[in-house]
Amino acid sequence: MRALARAATAVENRTAESQQLLKELFPHTGRALTIGVTGAPGAGKSTLVDGLIRQLRGEGRSIGVIAVDPSSPFSGGAILGDRIRMQEHHADPGVFIRSMATRGAMGGLAPATTDMALLLDATGRDVVLIETVGVGQDEVEIVRLADVTVVTLVPGMGDDVQAIKAGIMEIADVFVVNKADQPGSEKLEREILAMLSLAHRPDNWVPPVVRTVARDGQGIGAVLAAVRAYMEFGGRRGNRAGRWTLRLKQMLRERLLERFAEREFEQAAEQVAGRERDPYSVVNDWLKRF
Amino acid sequence: MRALARAATAVENRTAESQQLLKELFPHTGRALTIGVTGAPGAGKSTLVDGLIRQLRGEGRSIGVIAVDPSSPFSGGAILGDRIRMQEHHADPGVFIRSMATRGAMGGLAPATTDMALLLDATGRDVVLIETVGVGQDEVEIVRLADVTVVTLVPGMGDDVQAIKAGIMEIADVFVVNKADQPGSEKLEREILAMLSLAHRPDNWVPPVVRTVARDGQGIGAVLAAVRAYMEFGGRRGNRAGRWTLRLKQMLRERLLERFAEREFEQAAEQVAGRERDPYSVVNDWLKRF
Repeated sequence: MRALARAATAVENRTAESQQLLKELFPHTGRALTIGVTGAPGAGKSTLVDGLIRQLRGEGRSIGVIAVDPSSPFSGGAILGDRIRMQEHHADPGVFIRSMATRGAMGGLAPATTDMALLLDATGRDVVLIETVGVGQDEVEIVRLADVTVVTLVPGMGDDVQAIKAGIMEIADVFVVNKADQPGSEKLEREILAMLSLAHRPDNWVPPVVRTVARDGQGIGAVLAAVRAYMEFGGRRGNRAGRWTLRLKQMLRERLLERFAEREFEQAAEQVAGRERDPYSVVNDWLKRF
Repeated sequence: MRALARAATAVENRTAESQQLLKELFPHTGRALTIGVTGAPGAGKSTLVDGLIRQLRGEGRSIGVIAVDPSSPFSGGAILGDRIRMQEHHADPGVFIRSMATRGAMGGLAPATTDMALLLDATGRDVVLIETVGVGQDEVEIVRLADVTVVTLVPGMGDDVQAIKAGIMEIADVFVVNKADQPGSEKLEREILAMLSLAHRPDNWVPPVVRTVARDGQGIGAVLAAVRAYMEFGGRRGNRAGRWTLRLKQMLRERLLERFAEREFEQAAEQVAGRERDPYSVVNDWLKRF
């Protein structure tokens, strides 16, 4: 556990050493089941993740959790009750939890999350849970890296089925209607089903809709069953190479920008902000350097 | 208007011609007020944007709207009532509306949105409104490009103040508590104020909290007043160069990846997925090419 914690910190900080480590560990990856859990703030993702941890620990599985959600109790943004629950897991060596900081500007979060998931995979975790917030492009990139993605919704959040239609549809393998004891949950479920009846996935999988009350542990088993049904169906294995295409692009992009000193960007930015130069010419000049 | 529409389509499709056009137009940019409007799905961003359009049109300002939000009626994801409202603006030459598709994998959305905003700025729009959804990194990148950012919240969405604390705090110049006639709005306002009292911005601006019922037009004037107060305070002008640093990186990143054929990524991905090669070595080999 201490070695893993040290390695995770190296990966988080993207040290040169961590790159060598990941390279050596890579042949040992590909065994863990990676589950992405996403949804809007307030949808109860963390409570669902907590429920999944309990269920999987009950089966004797070892677990890694990566919290990319800034509101997640796993990443430190907890209300008191959640924090107490998390304490419990921190004492269990079968559960290893890491949060990834939603870093500043550049697209470094998705590759960093991938590396962390690979580390947990290589070190023998049976299941890696990745919790992210929102429906932004960055979340989509991260969640695409998972073997299966669970999208969590709650009743009474207005237009979110509309939003999901456009953004999340392509990545949702399992839908969870959480807080299913609250008014509007049947309506939400009907809306999801209506949306699904119009959509068609290239792999012919029809994402199941599972009702949960995660706070009471209701429906957690059914979520896990749905996840496993999708994996038995074939999961995203057919598209493993597709996911690696995405990852390789991310990695290349990040490494290329390392060649520039921050000061270079800043100096050019000053000139552009002052309308002394246009940004298109600046970038063209930089490209000549490669 | 027709020339602008054609130019916007060229920018959207990122044609070679559009790059030349943007280069020539660049010296004419920097005059429009760019307002970013963001928030979770269901927060009423579109209704707020609609209200801002009406108010600004009443003052005789010309407006450009860029909808990056997939659930926005401006980008076609409207429920009936919204669609009727939008029709109205489509008939007004003082309002030019474009949606940006939330494109697939790579980080192309933010630079494309920037280019569209520059086009609208160069062609003399007084105000450019950019509507985005969510709290993801991609939204943060987009919203950072604006002169001022309005974050819209509604009561009863659970933990979102928690989420905002971590993600949105740094970009919110004005907070809007929308649907302020609904229960929980005072509580939400108190939470935001409590959060603000703990935070400290480098520019010493304290983001005002404005209550609105956007559907009835209530509070729209106050939102605009808050936006203008921030601009008079200095806005993000002090950080114009900082924003250009970000934009230049995005542009460079995108242009560099154009040098690779999609097939190259795919072939390498196959090998990595089959564990024949590790991704770190693949990327290192690519880097040697530059």
